[in-house]
Amino acid sequence: MFVLVNLKAYPADPVDVAEAAATVADESGVDIAVAPQAADIGRVTETGAAVWAQHVSPVEHGSHTGSTLAESVAANGAVGTLVNHSERRLKLADIDASLDAADRADLETVVCANNPDQIAAAAALGPDAVAVEPPELIGTGTPVSQADPDIVEDAVAAAESVDPSVDVYCGAGISSGEDLVAARELGADGVLLASGVAKADDPKAALEDLVSEL
Amino acid sequence: MFVLVNLKAYPADPVDVAEAAATVADESGVDIAVAPQAADIGRVTETGAAVWAQHVSPVEHGSHTGSTLAESVAANGAVGTLVNHSERRLKLADIDASLDAADRADLETVVCANNPDQIAAAAALGPDAVAVEPPELIGTGTPVSQADPDIVEDAVAAAESVDPSVDVYCGAGISSGEDLVAARELGADGVLLASGVAKADDPKAALEDLVSEL
Amino acid sequence: MFVLVNLKAYPADPVDVAEAAATVADESGVDIAVAPQAADIGRVTETGAAVWAQHVSPVEHGSHTGSTLAESVAANGAVGTLVNHSERRLKLADIDASLDAADRADLETVVCANNPDQIAAAAALGPDAVAVEPPELIGTGTPVSQADPDIVEDAVAAAESVDPSVDVYCGAGISSGEDLVAARELGADGVLLASGVAKADDPKAALEDLVSEL
Amino acid sequence: MFVLVNLKAYPADPVDVAEAAATVADESGVDIAVAPQAADIGRVTETGAAVWAQHVSPVEHGSHTGSTLAESVAANGAVGTLVNHSERRLKLADIDASLDAADRADLETVVCANNPDQIAAAAALGPDAVAVEPPELIGTGTPVSQADPDIVEDAVAAAESVDPSVDVYCGAGISSGEDLVAARELGADGVLLASGVAKADDPKAALEDLVSEL
Repeated sequence: MFVLVNLKAYPADPVDVAEAAATVADESGVDIAVAPQAADIGRVTETGAAVWAQHVSPVEHGSHTGSTLAESVAANGAVGTLVNHSERRLKLADIDASLDAADRADLETVVCANNPDQIAAAAALGPDAVAVEPPELIGTGTPVSQADPDIVEDAVAAAESVDPSVDVYCGAGISSGEDLVAARELGADGVLLASGVAKADDPKAALEDLVSEL
Repeated sequence: MFVLVNLKAYPADPVDVAEAAATVADESGVDIAVAPQAADIGRVTETGAAVWAQHVSPVEHGSHTGSTLAESVAANGAVGTLVNHSERRLKLADIDASLDAADRADLETVVCANNPDQIAAAAALGPDAVAVEPPELIGTGTPVSQADPDIVEDAVAAAESVDPSVDVYCGAGISSGEDLVAARELGADGVLLASGVAKADDPKAALEDLVSEL
Repeated sequence: MFVLVNLKAYPADPVDVAEAAATVADESGVDIAVAPQAADIGRVTETGAAVWAQHVSPVEHGSHTGSTLAESVAANGAVGTLVNHSERRLKLADIDASLDAADRADLETVVCANNPDQIAAAAALGPDAVAVEPPELIGTGTPVSQADPDIVEDAVAAAESVDPSVDVYCGAGISSGEDLVAARELGADGVLLASGVAKADDPKAALEDLVSEL
Repeated sequence: MFVLVNLKAYPADPVDVAEAAATVADESGVDIAVAPQAADIGRVTETGAAVWAQHVSPVEHGSHTGSTLAESVAANGAVGTLVNHSERRLKLADIDASLDAADRADLETVVCANNPDQIAAAAALGPDAVAVEPPELIGTGTPVSQADPDIVEDAVAAAESVDPSVDVYCGAGISSGEDLVAARELGADGVLLASGVAKADDPKAALEDLVSEL
C-alpha cells in the first residue's frame, strides 16, 4: 500500500510532518510520501521523506510565469506529483499535457477523479495511478470505504477495464489503520489523505496508527 | 455521415447558413446540423435546420449567471451540443457534468478531443460521439484525413476499445466532398467543420460540394 | 432608479417575468430590465421588456466556439450586459476587453464587484455603471443597504473619486420597495436583483412592491 | 530604479542568475531582484539575492491543493511577488485577494497590466507598485519606452491619479542600459525584464550593461 499525505496549504510545519513520515516509513516498511507546497519541496526533501508535488503545470520550459514546472519540482527533490486534485481541477487536455510534463521530469503520477467514469477517463491517459475521491466525502472524516464502498470497487474495475497497469488509490476521509485495510480489501493499491495526518496534534502517532493494521 | 457546421463567432449570417444547411440536408438526405451562437438558436431553429449548441455549462437550474443552461438551449430548439471544443476546453469533471446536463435536456452530445488518448478518455464518459481535432490542423485548410490519417484511425480504435457504441467524428481542415469520403474511409461516422462552410461566399454550394461524393 | 432583474439559470419562465417587467415599467415609469439566458434573449425581447445579457465574452468576431458574442446578443435584442457578475468572474484584462466588445455592439454595461476597492478598479475601466454586491450577502434576503450601509456609501464615493460619470448600482438582498428607497438614499442609481422577483410566485406583484415607494 | 528579473520557466540555472543579480546589485547599488519558480525560491534565496515569487494564490491557509501560498513563499525567503502577470492573469477579485494574501505574508507587490486603464484599476487595489506591459511587445526585444513611449507616460499618469503612493514599473522589451534610462525618463520607478537577462549567455554582463547608465 502507498500512502500519500497531502499537506495542502495547511499551517502545519511541513518539515515536522515529513520527518514523521520518513520515520514511520522506515520503521514500518510502508511506502509513505508527503506533498508540500511547491516552495517547501527543497527543505522537505532534506528530511529524507519521499516528496511529491501537489500539482505540475501542463507546460515545457518557456515563457510561463507563475507556472509549476515539472522539471523544477523534480530538481528540488520531488519524485511524483498529484494531477487534477479536486481542489486543482484541470482541463482534459491539460491533464494529458501535465502527464507528459511529469514523464519528461521522471515524476510518478496520480490523477485524481470523482467517480468511476472519470477514473476510466483518467486511466486512458496513461498515468501511473488514479485516485478516486468523491467530492461529497472530502474533509468529512467519513472514509469512502465505509460511506460508499461500491465507488471504490467500481473505480478499481473501471481502471482495470481501460488499463490494468494503472494503480488505483482511494482518497477522502481516510484516517485510521482500519480505513487503510478497508481500502485495500476493496482493491485499492494506496490511499491519499490530508487532514487526518497534517492537522493531527501528533502526525507521527497518526501515521503509526494508519499503518498499524497492514 | 453526420455533418456539423460550427458557426463559432463568425460574422456570417447564421440564418443564411442554416437555410443552406436545411436545403442541402433535404435534397441530399445527409444529416446536417448547424451550431450558432446561443443567442441565435431560436431564430436559426425557425429555418428548419437541425440546430446544435456550441457549448453547455456543467450546471443545473440555479444561481449561475452567464451560464449556458442545457435546458435553455433545448427550449429554444437545439437538439445537440458540442462539449469541450478546442476553443472551449473544459475540466474533466465539467465534461462529465456537461454530459449529465445535456442528458437531462435530451441533447445529443459530441465531446471533442485532441488525440487518441483523450478520445478514449472522452468516450469513457459516455457521450453519443467524440470528435478528434488535432489542434495543429485547426483552421489550416489541410484535412486531418490527409495530414495525419493515422490519428483518425487511432481515434476510432481508441473509442471502440472503450465503448463501441460511441460514434467518432473527425474535425479540422475538412472542406470538400473528397475530405468527407476520406474521413468515412478512415472509420469516421461524421465530420465537424466550420470556416469551410461558414466563411464560404456561397454556403449552399460549399455544402453541396461537401456531400456530393456520398 | 434603474432596476435590473437577473434571471440567472432559474427555472422561472423568462417570458412571464419579462412580461411582468414590461407591464410594471410601463405603469410606473421606472426603468426595469431583465437579464435572461443568452438563448432566451430573442423571445424575451418580443415581450417589449428591456433585455440585458448576463455576460458577454471578451472577444471580437472570429474563431471562438462557445463564446457569447456581444454582437450576437445585441442582434437578438439585448441593449445592455452585466460584466464580471460574482457568479461569472472575469480576469481584469477580460473585463476591459468585454467592455470594448459591449461598446462595439452598443450595449450598456454594468461591472459588478465585491467591495469599494474593486468598485474603484471597475470604474477605472470606463463602464456605464458599476454594481457593488458583497458576496456574503448574495442570496441571503438581507439587503446590503441594511446589513452594511457603509459599503454602499463607500462604493459610491470610490466610483465618484475615479470617474463621476459612472453610475453605481447596489445588489445583494434587495427585494422590497423599502430596500430600493434605502439604496437610493445611500447614493445608488439603481439596483440589481434576482430571486426576489424571478423566484416570486407572482413576479408582477413583486415588481410592483419594489417600485411602490419611488 | 528597481530591476526585477523574471526567470519564468526558462531553462536557465536560477542560482547562476541569482548570483549574478546579487553581485551586480552589490557592486552598483541598484535594487535588483530575481523571480524564480516557486520550488526554487529556497535555494535561490541562499545566494543572497533579493527573491520574489512569480505569483501567489488568492487564498489563506486551508484546503487548497496546488496553490502557491504567500506564507509559504515568504517562509522560504521571498520578499515580494508579481501579481497578474500577462502569463498568469487573474480575476479582478483574485487580484484583490492575492494582494491581501501578500500583505499577510509581508511581501511587496507589483500588479501587472496591459494598458493605462488597467493600470488605474490595478492601482485602485492598493499594491506597492503596478507594471505596464503591452502584450504586443512582450518578447519582441523592442522596449516599450521606444515602441510606445506614450503608454508608459499614460500609465504613470493613470496610477498617479488614483493613488500617488503606487510606484510604476515598465516591462516588455527592456534589455539595455539605454532602455532603463529611457524608462526612468518616462517616469517609471523600475523595470521588469526576463529573457534579456535570463536567456543571456552571460547574465552578469547583461545586468551590468543594464545598470551601466544609471
